[in-house]
Amino acid sequence: MLSPFDDEYFMRKALEEAEEAYTKGEIPVGVVVVINNRIIARGHNLTETLNDVTAHAEMQAITAAANFLGGKYLVDCTMYVTLEPCQMCAGALYWSQLSKLVFAAEDHQRGYRKNGGKLHPKTQIKHGILEEEASALLKRFFIEKRNLN
Amino acid sequence: MLSPFDDEYFMRKALEEAEEAYTKGEIPVGVVVVINNRIIARGHNLTETLNDVTAHAEMQAITAAANFLGGKYLVDCTMYVTLEPCQMCAGALYWSQLSKLVFAAEDHQRGYRKNGGKLHPKTQIKHGILEEEASALLKRFFIEKRNLN
Repeated sequence: MLSPFDDEYFMRKALEEAEEAYTKGEIPVGVVVVINNRIIARGHNLTETLNDVTAHAEMQAITAAANFLGGKYLVDCTMYVTLEPCQMCAGALYWSQLSKLVFAAEDHQRGYRKNGGKLHPKTQIKHGILEEEASALLKRFFIEKRNLN
Repeated sequence: MLSPFDDEYFMRKALEEAEEAYTKGEIPVGVVVVINNRIIARGHNLTETLNDVTAHAEMQAITAAANFLGGKYLVDCTMYVTLEPCQMCAGALYWSQLSKLVFAAEDHQRGYRKNGGKLHPKTQIKHGILEEEASALLKRFFIEKRNLN
């Protein structure tokens, strides 16, 4: 029997977070952290709202997941994020020893792969899940932003 | 006339923060952020205390400095930190567009330069100020840690 809890299911939850960011005028990136098919942390980009460059969705979710687990390592956790992490977030994920990272859209400009960043050797990586939806939301945001300015 | 507020003066303040971390059983790294010879943010590593891999001294100080300034860019700011930033912190500093980074000890293992990380093109970089003191404190910490385990 197929499990209803597949990568697409959880990436859709991350997309809901991205949409939440969008409604706040934030670059729409969302994330959930999952362990044993259970979401233990959610987050969306809040850099403008908090006036804080460190307030990326992933950073908040790493902190929240560690709080939930009572320990700082995200062992057996999968992070679903709608955009490829940047250098900062990849560095945080490195320290967290995350087990698996799944991201939707690639970031050819600021993504960690383009910028020489690296994840922990233990971290499995998968991408492309709901890539079109995640990219479309980002494009919509930037087009609207340009038209407003 | 020489200013009393030179790089060594501010790095010594960062070292005081590192000593504070040391007394808490944290890897001793400390930081101050300075604008116009005034310290606007301080921080020390709190990853163990907070159970949070993102709680590096630099990350806290970036958030605190942005709060002080009321904006997320650390333009005209200098960060003094006792150890070369890691990939995560370099990524955060990249986003912050920090004007100048001064670090004491190099980190040949986890430092951003070794790990392909990069700062913002606008950021000036200087290192080696109070390097011996900063390294000695780190060495003392790790020797004591080994002897306790």
